[in-house]
Amino acid sequence: MQTQSFLSVAQQFKVVFLDSYGVLKNYNGLIDGVQDTIDALRKRNIAIRILTNDASRSQYQQVESFYNLGLTNVEEHEVVTSGMMAKHFLQQKILDGKIAYLGTENSAHYILQSGLEHIPVREIDLKKLDEISAFVFLDDEGFDWNTDINKTVNLLRHKNLPVIVANSDKFYPVSKNDVAVATGGIAKLVENMLNKKFIHFGKPDSQMFMYAYDELGASGNFSKQEILMVGDTLHTDILGGNKFGVKTTLVLSGNTSAEDAGLQISSTGIIPDYICDSILL
Amino acid sequence: MQTQSFLSVAQQFKVVFLDSYGVLKNYNGLIDGVQDTIDALRKRNIAIRILTNDASRSQYQQVESFYNLGLTNVEEHEVVTSGMMAKHFLQQKILDGKIAYLGTENSAHYILQSGLEHIPVREIDLKKLDEISAFVFLDDEGFDWNTDINKTVNLLRHKNLPVIVANSDKFYPVSKNDVAVATGGIAKLVENMLNKKFIHFGKPDSQMFMYAYDELGASGNFSKQEILMVGDTLHTDILGGNKFGVKTTLVLSGNTSAEDAGLQISSTGIIPDYICDSILL
Amino acid sequence: MQTQSFLSVAQQFKVVFLDSYGVLKNYNGLIDGVQDTIDALRKRNIAIRILTNDASRSQYQQVESFYNLGLTNVEEHEVVTSGMMAKHFLQQKILDGKIAYLGTENSAHYILQSGLEHIPVREIDLKKLDEISAFVFLDDEGFDWNTDINKTVNLLRHKNLPVIVANSDKFYPVSKNDVAVATGGIAKLVENMLNKKFIHFGKPDSQMFMYAYDELGASGNFSKQEILMVGDTLHTDILGGNKFGVKTTLVLSGNTSAEDAGLQISSTGIIPDYICDSILL
Amino acid sequence: MQTQSFLSVAQQFKVVFLDSYGVLKNYNGLIDGVQDTIDALRKRNIAIRILTNDASRSQYQQVESFYNLGLTNVEEHEVVTSGMMAKHFLQQKILDGKIAYLGTENSAHYILQSGLEHIPVREIDLKKLDEISAFVFLDDEGFDWNTDINKTVNLLRHKNLPVIVANSDKFYPVSKNDVAVATGGIAKLVENMLNKKFIHFGKPDSQMFMYAYDELGASGNFSKQEILMVGDTLHTDILGGNKFGVKTTLVLSGNTSAEDAGLQISSTGIIPDYICDSILL
Repeated sequence: MQTQSFLSVAQQFKVVFLDSYGVLKNYNGLIDGVQDTIDALRKRNIAIRILTNDASRSQYQQVESFYNLGLTNVEEHEVVTSGMMAKHFLQQKILDGKIAYLGTENSAHYILQSGLEHIPVREIDLKKLDEISAFVFLDDEGFDWNTDINKTVNLLRHKNLPVIVANSDKFYPVSKNDVAVATGGIAKLVENMLNKKFIHFGKPDSQMFMYAYDELGASGNFSKQEILMVGDTLHTDILGGNKFGVKTTLVLSGNTSAEDAGLQISSTGIIPDYICDSILL
Repeated sequence: MQTQSFLSVAQQFKVVFLDSYGVLKNYNGLIDGVQDTIDALRKRNIAIRILTNDASRSQYQQVESFYNLGLTNVEEHEVVTSGMMAKHFLQQKILDGKIAYLGTENSAHYILQSGLEHIPVREIDLKKLDEISAFVFLDDEGFDWNTDINKTVNLLRHKNLPVIVANSDKFYPVSKNDVAVATGGIAKLVENMLNKKFIHFGKPDSQMFMYAYDELGASGNFSKQEILMVGDTLHTDILGGNKFGVKTTLVLSGNTSAEDAGLQISSTGIIPDYICDSILL
Repeated sequence: MQTQSFLSVAQQFKVVFLDSYGVLKNYNGLIDGVQDTIDALRKRNIAIRILTNDASRSQYQQVESFYNLGLTNVEEHEVVTSGMMAKHFLQQKILDGKIAYLGTENSAHYILQSGLEHIPVREIDLKKLDEISAFVFLDDEGFDWNTDINKTVNLLRHKNLPVIVANSDKFYPVSKNDVAVATGGIAKLVENMLNKKFIHFGKPDSQMFMYAYDELGASGNFSKQEILMVGDTLHTDILGGNKFGVKTTLVLSGNTSAEDAGLQISSTGIIPDYICDSILL
Repeated sequence: MQTQSFLSVAQQFKVVFLDSYGVLKNYNGLIDGVQDTIDALRKRNIAIRILTNDASRSQYQQVESFYNLGLTNVEEHEVVTSGMMAKHFLQQKILDGKIAYLGTENSAHYILQSGLEHIPVREIDLKKLDEISAFVFLDDEGFDWNTDINKTVNLLRHKNLPVIVANSDKFYPVSKNDVAVATGGIAKLVENMLNKKFIHFGKPDSQMFMYAYDELGASGNFSKQEILMVGDTLHTDILGGNKFGVKTTLVLSGNTSAEDAGLQISSTGIIPDYICDSILL
C-alpha cells in the first residue's frame, strides 16, 4: 500500500475534519506527535474540526479529556459529536413529555437538557407509559444489561415512540486487541428484535459533516473542495466524507491496518482519495 | 379470517407435528383442553411429534415439564428439540478440544455430553484459546450479560471457530404482554458485531423436520403428504413446514392473533394450508 | 385515522418541503386542486420547495413537466432532485477520467455535464477500463436489461470504482395498481451480487434537505422549526424529514392509504407529526 | 494455505458428495483428470453423488451433458439438483391451479410436470389471476428482462402466492473472468421489491443433502460420519455440508482461489474440515 505524507496532503486544503479515536488517540492515550501535527496545521491557518461518534461526553468534557491526554489547544467549538446531533434533534422534534433513556446519567444530563424530564429505563413503570414521548440510546454503560435491555424491548413493544440512537457505532476498542459492544450495537439488537429502524446519529450519516460545514460558514466561506476528512474507518469516516462530497484520507493508525487496507477498500468499494500511515508529520 | 375445526383438518393425516409454545402451552401453563385433543389424535392412531425451538431442556426434562403442567402421556421419543440437533451436530463434527458456551450448566450438561470438556465463557482465559474447538450459544441465562457478551465477541475475534446456535428464536414470551431476548437474539447481536453467520438450529430450518421424519420411518413408512405441521408462528413453524414439503396449519392461540393473521400472511407471503383458532376440538 | 386540514397545519410554518409523486401528482396527472393549495401557500408568503427522488429530468425539465400538467408557477430553484445531488457529488469528487453509466442519454446529459466524458455501459469494452473513473446508476430505461445489467456487474468486478446511485427509490408507480423497478432497485440487485454498498442519493438521506435548507438561507434565515416536510411515503419523506429535524406531515394521497397508515406507522416506528388526507385545502 | 491430496482425504469415507461447477467442470469444460478421480473412487467402492444448484436440466440432461464433456459413467440417480427439490415441493404442496414461471420452456417442462398446467409470465393476463396457484423462478433465460421482471413484481403484488426459487445461486461463471446474474439473483431483486422471502431450493439448505442421504439409505446404511462433501464455495457447499453434519472439503479449483481461501474462511467463519487444491489425484 503506497502511502503519502500527511502534511503534503493536508496543506492542499483550508479545513481538515479529523476523526478522534484511531487518528488523534488510541487505547494508550494520545498518539505520539499529534500535538505537533495540530500545531503545524494551525500555523498554516488550516482550520480543524474533530468529528467523533460519541455520546458520552459534552464538547466541554471532550476538550477537557484531550487536555488531560496532552492535546492542550482544542477549543469547544472545534468538537462535533454524534451526541450533539441527537440533542439538536430532540430539541427540534420532542417538545413535551418525558424522555426515556438507556445509558449513564452524565450523558442524559448533557444530551437531554431540553427542559424536558428524562428517566432511565430501570425506573420506568411499563404500565405507566402515557407521559413517555421519546426513547434515546445513549451509552453502553449505566444500566444492567441482564434486565434493562429486555425492559427496553418491552417498553418499545408497548408504545410506539420516536427512538434515537445517539452514537451509531457498533463497538469501540478497549485495548490493543479487544473491543466492547457500543450503543449502536445494543440499538441494533433491539431493532432486530422489533423489526424496526431507529433514527441513528453519527458518521457515515451527513449530519455531523453538515453541522461542521454550516458552523464554518459563519467564520468565512468554504467550498467542499477545500475540506479534507481524515479517519481510520472506511464505513464511517471515509464513506461519510465521500457521501458528503469532500476529499477523504484513510490513516492506518487505527481500525484499518496497512495489511488490510487494500483488501478492505476493494471489497467494500469505499475508496479514500488519499492514504497516509498516520497524521504524524 | 375463516377458520376450520382442528379435528376436521387433522384427521386427514397420519402424523401431526406440533409446535409447543403457543400451541400446547402458554405463559399460563397448559392450554385448556389440549389433553383432550392429544387423546383424540392418539385414539385415531394419528402419530404426534412435538417440534420445539428449545435448548434449555433435554427430552426427558421436556416430558417431565409437560407432565407437571398436566399433559401426562407424552413420550420422550415424541419430542424433538433444536438443542438435540445442536447436540448431534457437535457429535458428528467436533471430535476434540474443549467446547466453549454461553448459557446454563444444565443445558451444557445435556447438549455437550459428547465426551468433550465444556467450559462457560466466564471461565475462559482469552489468552489461552488453543484448546477451544467450538463455541455454542445455548441459553439466555446462566451468565452475566454485562461482561460475558463482550467476552464472547472478543473470544470469537481472537479465534476462528465453528459457532453453533442451539435455538435460533430471537425472543420468547414471559407473560401475556412481555417477551425476553432469547439465545438466537444474542447470537444475532454477536453475528452483527463480527459480520459473520453462525450455524443456527431450529425451525424454519429443515433439520428437526428431517429428524422427526426419519425417526418415524423406523416405525412404518409415511409420505410427506400424510404429515401436518401445526404452529402459531409463520416465520418458524409454517415456513419450515412449507419448505419441508408438508401441509401446514396456523393456529391463532399464540404469536399470531386472529386480527393480524390475514395481514401477516399477505405481507410475508408465508401461506399456511389451513387456519384453526387453536388445536382444541 | 384522525386527519387534519392541510392548511391548518401548513400555516404554522414559513417553509413547506413537498414530495412530488403522490403529493402533487400521480399516474393520472396533477392531483385536482393542487394549484389552489400552492397559490394559497404563496399568498401567505410560505416558501415551497419540491424535493423529489428523480434523476431523469433536470430542474428545467421538471418545471416544464409541472407546467404541462397544469401547475404553472413552479420555479426552477424551487425544485431539488436526487439527480442534482449526484451531479454535485461528481463535480466535487470525480475530476478526471470517463464516467460510465446505466440509463438514458438525457439523464447522462444533464447529470454528467462536469466536463468529463461519459459513456453508456453498452459501449464499454470490458478489457479497456483504464480511463473509467466512476460509475453512475441513472435510470431504469435507456439500456437493454438482458445484457447491460450483467455487463455492469462484470465491469464493477473488474475495476473498483466509486459507484453513485442517482435515485435510491426501488420502484415507481406506473398506474393505479402497477409499479416498475426503478434505478435504486437495479442498483440494489448489483450491490447484492457484489456484496458492496454504493453511494445513494435521495430521501431519506439528508443531502436534499440540506441543499434546500442552505439555498433558503441565502434568501433569509430560517430555523428548522419553521420548516414542514410533506410526503406520502414513510420510509423516504417522513423518515428523512424526521432525521433532518423538521416537522413532518404524512398525506394519504399516494403510497400510504388511509387503511394502512396506522399499521405502517406502528410497525415501522416512523412517526409523522401530522397526518392529512392530502394537501388540498 | 496447506492443502492435502484429495485421495488421502476421500478414502477415509464411504460416500463423497461432489459439487459440479468448480469441482468437476468449469467454463472450459471438464477439469483435466476428473475422470481418473471418479474412476479411482468407484474402484474403492466409494459411492458418489453430484449435488448441484441447477434448475435448467433434468437428471437425464445432466448425465448427457457430463457425457458430452467426457465424463462417461455418471448415472442419473447419482445426480441431485435444486430443480428436483423444487419439483418435489410442487408435487407435494401445489395440487391444483396453474403454475406461473419465469424461465425457459425446457426447465418448465421437466420441473413442472406435475399434471398441472404451467404458463410463462409473458403470457399471463394480470387481470385474470384466479387460476394461478404458485409462482416459480426457474431460469435466468427464456424471457425478456426489460418487461417480464416488472410483470413478475406486479403479478406478485396483485396475488399472494407461494413463490419457489428453483436455484438459489445469485450468479454463475460464464468465462474465466465474467459471471452472469442467475435465477437466485433475480429472485432476490423481486424479494427486495416486495419485502418478502420466497422458498429457496439449493445448497446451503439441507434438502439436497437430505435427499441424497435418504436415497443412499435404500442401498445400504451410512452414517453421516462416513460422508464427505466436496465443493469450491464456502457459502453453499461447505456451509451446507457443515450444517447437515458431514465432513467438508474445500477445493481451490473454482470460486475460491488459493490466495483468498484463508481470508475468506476467517472472515466468514465457515470452516472446512479439509482443503485440497482440486479433486485430482
